Amino acid sequence: MKASRLFQQDILSATQFTRSDLEDISERTLKLREMPRKKRRKLLQDIVITDLFYEPSSRTSSSFESAAKYLGGNVIAINGVEYSSVSKGETLEDTVRTFQSYSDLIVLRHKETGAAERAARVMKKPLINAGDGEGEHPTQALLDIFTITQELGDIDGLTITMVGDLKRGRTVHALAKLLSLYRVRLRFVSPRVLAMPEEIKTYLHEHRVPFEESHSLEASLSDSDVVYMTRTQRERPTGNKADDDAIQSARQFVLNRDLMKRTMKKRMIVMHPFPRNEEIALDVDADPRAAYFRQIENGLYIRMALLTMVLGTN
Amino acid sequence: MKASRLFQQDILSATQFTRSDLEDISERTLKLREMPRKKRRKLLQDIVITDLFYEPSSRTSSSFESAAKYLGGNVIAINGVEYSSVSKGETLEDTVRTFQSYSDLIVLRHKETGAAERAARVMKKPLINAGDGEGEHPTQALLDIFTITQELGDIDGLTITMVGDLKRGRTVHALAKLLSLYRVRLRFVSPRVLAMPEEIKTYLHEHRVPFEESHSLEASLSDSDVVYMTRTQRERPTGNKADDDAIQSARQFVLNRDLMKRTMKKRMIVMHPFPRNEEIALDVDADPRAAYFRQIENGLYIRMALLTMVLGTN
Amino acid sequence: MKASRLFQQDILSATQFTRSDLEDISERTLKLREMPRKKRRKLLQDIVITDLFYEPSSRTSSSFESAAKYLGGNVIAINGVEYSSVSKGETLEDTVRTFQSYSDLIVLRHKETGAAERAARVMKKPLINAGDGEGEHPTQALLDIFTITQELGDIDGLTITMVGDLKRGRTVHALAKLLSLYRVRLRFVSPRVLAMPEEIKTYLHEHRVPFEESHSLEASLSDSDVVYMTRTQRERPTGNKADDDAIQSARQFVLNRDLMKRTMKKRMIVMHPFPRNEEIALDVDADPRAAYFRQIENGLYIRMALLTMVLGTN
Repeated sequence: MKASRLFQQDILSATQFTRSDLEDISERTLKLREMPRKKRRKLLQDIVITDLFYEPSSRTSSSFESAAKYLGGNVIAINGVEYSSVSKGETLEDTVRTFQSYSDLIVLRHKETGAAERAARVMKKPLINAGDGEGEHPTQALLDIFTITQELGDIDGLTITMVGDLKRGRTVHALAKLLSLYRVRLRFVSPRVLAMPEEIKTYLHEHRVPFEESHSLEASLSDSDVVYMTRTQRERPTGNKADDDAIQSARQFVLNRDLMKRTMKKRMIVMHPFPRNEEIALDVDADPRAAYFRQIENGLYIRMALLTMVLGTN
Repeated sequence: MKASRLFQQDILSATQFTRSDLEDISERTLKLREMPRKKRRKLLQDIVITDLFYEPSSRTSSSFESAAKYLGGNVIAINGVEYSSVSKGETLEDTVRTFQSYSDLIVLRHKETGAAERAARVMKKPLINAGDGEGEHPTQALLDIFTITQELGDIDGLTITMVGDLKRGRTVHALAKLLSLYRVRLRFVSPRVLAMPEEIKTYLHEHRVPFEESHSLEASLSDSDVVYMTRTQRERPTGNKADDDAIQSARQFVLNRDLMKRTMKKRMIVMHPFPRNEEIALDVDADPRAAYFRQIENGLYIRMALLTMVLGTN
Repeated sequence: MKASRLFQQDILSATQFTRSDLEDISERTLKLREMPRKKRRKLLQDIVITDLFYEPSSRTSSSFESAAKYLGGNVIAINGVEYSSVSKGETLEDTVRTFQSYSDLIVLRHKETGAAERAARVMKKPLINAGDGEGEHPTQALLDIFTITQELGDIDGLTITMVGDLKRGRTVHALAKLLSLYRVRLRFVSPRVLAMPEEIKTYLHEHRVPFEESHSLEASLSDSDVVYMTRTQRERPTGNKADDDAIQSARQFVLNRDLMKRTMKKRMIVMHPFPRNEEIALDVDADPRAAYFRQIENGLYIRMALLTMVLGTN
């Protein structure tokens, strides 16, 4: 494989990518998905990466771990740094400087917005942001883009509807920004108090992406090519009664087989970053338009692609 | 090695095996134990397995992890899912569907009886049950059978005595069922309140396995070929005073060097699924009849055998 | 590489090494640092080691894990045994006897002084002590010695100043003992209540190592070739108010750029076992005499050297 523009670069934000980058990543992802296992596992044989997860997330951590391992690489998996002794009052900067001595790349998940950039600033080795607070989660956005392309062929011309807690879901923030590279129409369905933040809407205005907001799920479905459901972030209570009530009200947005049958197009897909709670009923799983399990699997191959592009193999 | 009947099958219950299966597993186990390391580590080189342990158990988890690694395989080890973010309110079904995207096989430990079967029902990849609640723990039963064969040559004709908390010990339940494939006599030594459950006794009746119950350890030892000690399950208090008292009383069953000298045959073995508490005194360890450390090591090779049989290598 | 005197030996204490051992380890370390990755990763391909950490320490654990993995080895990483089910009331002796069945070597971190020796006594496989209570931490001492040699060429003739909580820091205890193999002058800077223990001072007397004690950091710096800063052990409160006050007073010993400029030699180094708290200001990091990040990296190569020497490769 040819050397990538991402060689030894940090992956910090969805906004760092051009459309041409996305095409390169997509091409590499497909190549790795088709590659025989015996060949694939030789690509990162000399490599050790560290999954440094301050906020535990077995799901994202395991996706990177699996990607590295199918490529023959090695992983030091540290989940829940706060509960381990890494902390002992140490700064994030000192911690990443330590772990870059033990590995060739750090995958960082952190609670604070901006943590990935702070870490990258003091590191000599590349860093992949696996989610920092309400900030970025670029690999999720990349796998979402890849999934839409794989499922529907082309992103230009699509109507994409995002549903649920749009205020705090970093997944939909990153995806909305990344979609501004394409010619799409966006629709945001949420209770008022969990609406898409002004910052994202300003970004979309500046990039001339048409979007509309709605408070009704049912009314938003019939012309959607992609319905992107999100989970109410149960694990981060606001402490504010009005907000918590609104979160409760986000639970009204539930997609089930009956609603799909009544409203949705034949050729469209339902996505979800997972884990899900009640927002997608189990009876949707058998519908071929339910793309979320394929989306998870795409995440594995996207991460393989990024690891080989950043760590370089040819 | 030839393809196995277990290829791509789930390992859910001790009762799924025929006597011929047990012989195949035993043969494969011996082969792997003797195989040079250099050859062995090529068997699972392309493979990633996930140890998904809802209930933490470094011991069982590490045994699978070690088996996979000596075979050249890779492991994603997730211990204590509840404390990680895997949960976030997610169902077991969604979790295993996610992790099967990241690996070729899942080893599952769960608190709820029947969890392994529920998980297997929605999975496309094979699953190995590493213990579900008070239900099954088939790989422990398999290594116990293998140990008896290795130590005493033949199981037919043996008198096997199980001691301790027989009510809640899934180890002895699975072993008792598996022993019904052989011509054995069983003896169950426990306080009345921790006796072998009716379900197991009915199973033995149906399979015409002769057994007797006793409340005296000393009186049960002289004709035993195998004494299988178990630990009082300290970590699961019943909340019921009468029961908890009975558990206390199970602590009366203590095997020590003096008792062995006074009562036991020359050619017999003492087994224990470990960890032990006080039920086997340390002065027993030096006795050649103490087979429990060899039993632990057999567990490693049994798990190697199962992994190669399920994941297939030739 | 030639077989080592350490082949299949335990690494329990800094005092087990002769000066010739230290030279062998240093030579092996340099060799491994220069070795091409492709060659290095073939050295422990058949090997599984267990990191058995009762006291969680992602830092030390990861250093061993990384060392093993760059050598092609496999690692079972168990952090925080107490919170896992390894314990279930099990003795340390039973636990290590179990884990030696699953691996070729155990790296042990434990809270109790003397735990490593207790464990080694019942094991058939080699054990490396990665810190036991206020006892030993020999691999840290070895990497410290290696760092001084690499940075300053020769240890004989140096003045080495240790600063901070010298009472409970096992790092400085092990280093002081190991330095007695060389012709050095030692200086200990601490508040009175956190002074170097009598046991260590007696050891130095017996080995004719000249040392002095001081309570002023500034007055101790101008002739130092090595200033070894240590962290106040926040995570182990004494429960005694007078002691805790003294620990507070240890926080007075802070090294910053200004103090270095005013007092220190051009050719000297600042070391720290990390993590640090406030005792070294961030503005020291850019100074070429700040050797602590290089020291961390040396730790990786020292551990590679020890693993290959103990596990034997030629």
